[in-house]
Amino acid sequence: MENRRVVLASRPQGAVSEDNFRIESAPLPRCGDGEVLVRNLWLSLDPYMRGRMSDAKSYAKGVDIGELMVGQTLGEVVESRHPQLKKGDKVLTQLGWQLYGCTKDAVKIDETRAPLTYYLGVLGMPGITAYFGLKEIGSPKPGETVVVSAASGAVGSVVGQLAKIWGCRAVGIAGGPQKCEYVTGELGFDACVDYKAGDLHRDLQAACPKGADVYFDNVGGEILDAMLRLTNLFARIVVCGMIADYSATQPYAVRNLRFVLINRIRMQGMIVFDWKARYGEALKALGEYFAQGKLKYRESIVEGLENAPKGLIALLRGQNFGKQLVKLA
Amino acid sequence: MENRRVVLASRPQGAVSEDNFRIESAPLPRCGDGEVLVRNLWLSLDPYMRGRMSDAKSYAKGVDIGELMVGQTLGEVVESRHPQLKKGDKVLTQLGWQLYGCTKDAVKIDETRAPLTYYLGVLGMPGITAYFGLKEIGSPKPGETVVVSAASGAVGSVVGQLAKIWGCRAVGIAGGPQKCEYVTGELGFDACVDYKAGDLHRDLQAACPKGADVYFDNVGGEILDAMLRLTNLFARIVVCGMIADYSATQPYAVRNLRFVLINRIRMQGMIVFDWKARYGEALKALGEYFAQGKLKYRESIVEGLENAPKGLIALLRGQNFGKQLVKLA
Repeated sequence: MENRRVVLASRPQGAVSEDNFRIESAPLPRCGDGEVLVRNLWLSLDPYMRGRMSDAKSYAKGVDIGELMVGQTLGEVVESRHPQLKKGDKVLTQLGWQLYGCTKDAVKIDETRAPLTYYLGVLGMPGITAYFGLKEIGSPKPGETVVVSAASGAVGSVVGQLAKIWGCRAVGIAGGPQKCEYVTGELGFDACVDYKAGDLHRDLQAACPKGADVYFDNVGGEILDAMLRLTNLFARIVVCGMIADYSATQPYAVRNLRFVLINRIRMQGMIVFDWKARYGEALKALGEYFAQGKLKYRESIVEGLENAPKGLIALLRGQNFGKQLVKLA
Repeated sequence: MENRRVVLASRPQGAVSEDNFRIESAPLPRCGDGEVLVRNLWLSLDPYMRGRMSDAKSYAKGVDIGELMVGQTLGEVVESRHPQLKKGDKVLTQLGWQLYGCTKDAVKIDETRAPLTYYLGVLGMPGITAYFGLKEIGSPKPGETVVVSAASGAVGSVVGQLAKIWGCRAVGIAGGPQKCEYVTGELGFDACVDYKAGDLHRDLQAACPKGADVYFDNVGGEILDAMLRLTNLFARIVVCGMIADYSATQPYAVRNLRFVLINRIRMQGMIVFDWKARYGEALKALGEYFAQGKLKYRESIVEGLENAPKGLIALLRGQNFGKQLVKLA
């Protein structure tokens, strides 16, 4: 048995390419006291990983060249020197892009409540992000219009469904008719705008006849600029992701920021870790909605660690559909 | 006796010019029941007036072509059919760019507490704007760094002085060494950056060795873009004015908006009318600080209604120094 790991080979200039990664073999790690050796079964791929590949200032330190790519993982305990965990336990960890790892920080998962992988998505970080971003920053009131970009994705799909549960009109923005059909047909949003269709501003206007009270932004760039024009008085903009900027060599230049003044918008950045102390509250609510059948969810699966770079590249291009995962075993 | 008034002759394309105004003579207005006839003594000139000259969407309706230019005024009651006001009373009104006007909405001013004109500035709308913008949106904590642009102006000068009173480091941004000297020497800010001096980003960095926790923005544009890079984690940006955009045919394109996400900034637009229900609270606090000698204040005076257009043009170019007023009589 040996370990295999994906390390950062070089920093991307602009878009990520497979050359930026290198797959390495390594001996199985030797775990210390209080640690478990985990065989990773699933790796979560997320847009924030683009930020970690860069050495520009961001909210977390970048990965060094030659270092293991970071990421959330789901696995099975192979050996335990941890007081509360035993062999065979399924655990949520931050072991990164590799097949095996040692850690003290493993959270045991209850497989009977939901499929294992859902703890990387709707019942994990993306779900919690959607919950606090919408509830605490978006502050939606019943009858208001909530717009969310990357609406078929792991975070966006939960945002729109929560908006519906909380009595709002939910409008999604997604790339292509197939995703939009899913967003309205499966997820139950009231409308969806295909940003690739042509006239973004006109289509957004048609989807939001009463304007937008909340915009949950997962993408930044041109779509944020268009949404600024559609805001109502005292609208809230949740800045959760700027995927449009992550791979751009020149950041998109926003021209409609004057609407922040005109409409007295409150615009606020968030990352999920800021709510760490309240994760339990979100997981309880999301678990209940899920058990009641109110949260639909979709996954996009890449097979094998060696295909993880391809998976991330597809995700950053918006080619995935739903939560992007890598099946490691 | 006749009235004279300045009306909007044409909408500016880009920068305002004197051609955009026309001075007209008119008969003295005839007041109705409950109204006072006021002889205006002072007209306040403010950056928001540029917005009113345009027909683009803003937070208030624009002035129509041929219509009287709007503005806050201070005057003396000439004739009264108002139950609480009598001839000779000094009153605060919204009578616009003219020598005489009728109104029911006149607030009597107590001349013994402060010079009359201060009710158009430090003890009026600009002061109230500074108070609520900084207190409620900026939420400054003692020891934090508060940066304000247009620091020698009517709003900015109060923002920085309040920041000092509330235990913060106050950093101003102003145009030219003379204004900066006033901001640090007279107003007591800890530092001032001359945005015309050359290297804005480097100078701001030097003035904010611990970064910026609050940025009170009166100008938008390039300075906002530079300040975004200097923000600390969980910084607040008060969007109070975008003077840089008011006269631009193409709005400035902001490139550093990603810092809203990176630093989880809260950025919020404000206009003073949103706090109408709480004006009394602000006026009480400002009045006390003023009486204690803690609020310094400076005015820039243009003589005569016919020079009001020149005064506004100078204000929009940043050529004024302190609160811009027109002396009408």
